Amino acid sequence: MGRYEIAIIGTGPAGLEAAITATVRNKKVLLLGSRESSLKVSKAHKIANYLGLPEIAGADLAAAYLKHIDAMGIQITEDKINAIYSMGDYFVLQGNENVMYEADAVILATGVVAGKPFPGEDENLGRGVSYCATCDAALYRGKSAVVIGYAPKEEPEAEFLAEIADKVTYLAMYPEETSFTRENVEVLRVKPLSIVRDGRMKLVTDQGEIESDGVFVLREAISPKQLVPGLATDGPHVTVDLQMKTNLPGCFACGDIAGTPYQYIKAAGQGNVAALSAVSYLDMKKRSGGK
Amino acid sequence: MGRYEIAIIGTGPAGLEAAITATVRNKKVLLLGSRESSLKVSKAHKIANYLGLPEIAGADLAAAYLKHIDAMGIQITEDKINAIYSMGDYFVLQGNENVMYEADAVILATGVVAGKPFPGEDENLGRGVSYCATCDAALYRGKSAVVIGYAPKEEPEAEFLAEIADKVTYLAMYPEETSFTRENVEVLRVKPLSIVRDGRMKLVTDQGEIESDGVFVLREAISPKQLVPGLATDGPHVTVDLQMKTNLPGCFACGDIAGTPYQYIKAAGQGNVAALSAVSYLDMKKRSGGK
Repeated sequence: MGRYEIAIIGTGPAGLEAAITATVRNKKVLLLGSRESSLKVSKAHKIANYLGLPEIAGADLAAAYLKHIDAMGIQITEDKINAIYSMGDYFVLQGNENVMYEADAVILATGVVAGKPFPGEDENLGRGVSYCATCDAALYRGKSAVVIGYAPKEEPEAEFLAEIADKVTYLAMYPEETSFTRENVEVLRVKPLSIVRDGRMKLVTDQGEIESDGVFVLREAISPKQLVPGLATDGPHVTVDLQMKTNLPGCFACGDIAGTPYQYIKAAGQGNVAALSAVSYLDMKKRSGGK
Repeated sequence: MGRYEIAIIGTGPAGLEAAITATVRNKKVLLLGSRESSLKVSKAHKIANYLGLPEIAGADLAAAYLKHIDAMGIQITEDKINAIYSMGDYFVLQGNENVMYEADAVILATGVVAGKPFPGEDENLGRGVSYCATCDAALYRGKSAVVIGYAPKEEPEAEFLAEIADKVTYLAMYPEETSFTRENVEVLRVKPLSIVRDGRMKLVTDQGEIESDGVFVLREAISPKQLVPGLATDGPHVTVDLQMKTNLPGCFACGDIAGTPYQYIKAAGQGNVAALSAVSYLDMKKRSGGK
C-alpha cells in the first residue's frame, strides 16, 4: 500500500469538496467513507440556500454530488476509520479489519456525533467499551458482547464478531429490519441508557440490564477526540482556525465537525479551504526537505 | 425609507448566498451591488470545484446564481456604497448621489481591491483624492478633475462630474470603448503610476503628468478600512472569526474580503455563515430589548 498525500475522512459535502479541490490540485487523495449512507444530505427534504441550485431536493443534491466526483474519477474507499495517529510527519489511519493507511496530511470531515455518549461510555473506552468490532473481535473468543448499531451497515461488523464470540446481542437503533444469518446473534429493540463496569460489563436499558464481556458502540461518527489522539476539541467540535487548521500540523477539519452552523454550503466551503490548506502544507513540507 | 434588518454589500457568491440565507430566515434584506458586473464569476472560464456543479463555465454559474435569487424574489439595489458608519445599534450606509440607507446589521461581501493603492493615494484621500464622484462633485464647480475608471459602469459617474466641473480627464482602465456624450470629457489610455499633491493634484502616468484639482479613483471595491471607519483589518482583508464576525458588533464579513483562498464555494459558504450570524445577532438584540 502506497502512501497517500491527503487522506479525507467523510463523504458529506465537506469531504467531497475537499476531495475535488485536492484532486484539481493534483494530489494523491484517499477519500474514505460510505458512498451511500454518509450522504445524509439525501434525507433532506428541500434545500433552499445552496447557491446555484435553487430549491433542490436532498436526493437530487446528493445525486449532483456523486455525479461531480464520478466525473472527476474520484474513488470512495468504503471503510470506516477508527483511529488516526500522528507519526510526526505523516499519519496512520486504522480502518475496519485492521487495514492501515498512511497519508502525509489528513482532513477530518466526519460530521458530528449525534447525541452525547452514554453515561459510562467515555470512562470505559478500551476497558470493555469499543468502537470497532473487527479490531477487537479476537479478544472475544468464547465470550459474549453487546453491539449497539446505529445503521444497517453495522450489521456485518456484528456478524463478524459473532464468528468469534459465543454470543452477540445486537441492539438495532434504526427502524429497518435486520438481516443476520448467524444464530448466535440476538436482535433486541431496546433503548440503551448507560454502561456500567462491575466485574463484567452491564448495559442498562429501558427494559432491564444486559450483562456481557464487552459493549460495542457503532455510530456513524465517533467523537473527534477518540478518533485522533491529541486533537484539540471544543465539545463535539474540532478546534480550527479560518484556514481549517487543527492543533496538529498536517491535520485539518471542515464541515459540521469544525463547528456550527450545520449547513451544506458552509461545509462545502470549508472543505475547499481545508484542501487548499493541506496542499499548502504539503508544498511547504516539500520545500523544507521533508518527504 | 424604512430601516432594513440586514444590509448586504456585494453581489458575488458571498453576498448572494448571504441574501438567500437571510431571506430564508425571513429577514428584511437590502442587497446592494451590481446585478451584472459584480459577478466576476461570469468571466471565469471553467470552474471545476463548485461541489454539485461539475466543470461549469463561469457564465453558466453566474446564470445559476441569478436564477436562484430571482426565484426567491430577491432584489438587487444597484448602488455603490462609499461609506458605512456604525451608529451604535444600527448602521448608516452612504450610497452614490448621497442616498442613505439604514440597517440593523451589515454584511460586507465586496471582494478584495485588485492591486494596491497608488503611491500617494491613501495619504491624499479626502484631500484631493476621492472614491465617489457623485458625492464630491459639488466641490468641482469650475474646476478640473481626473477620473481613473476601472469599469465601463464608472462612466456615468464621470459624466455627472463633467456636468459640474469644467474639465474631466478620464483614464479608461479597461479595453472596452467609452461612450461619453459631453465634450469636456477627455478620454486617455495611459497608465497611472502615482498621485502627488503639490498645490494642485498631479497624477503621474507612464506618459507624463496630468494636473488637476482632484483625482477620483473608481474601483470595483474600495478598501474595507476606508469603507467602514473603525473596522479591524489585516492588509486588504477584514479580520473575522469563524462565525464571520468583525470587531464591530453587528458587522460581518465574508468571501474574498474575509481572506484567502479566493474561491467561489468558500465565499458562498462564508456568506451562509455570515447571514446566520447576523440573524443570531438580531435575535439577541431583540431579546435584550434593543430595537
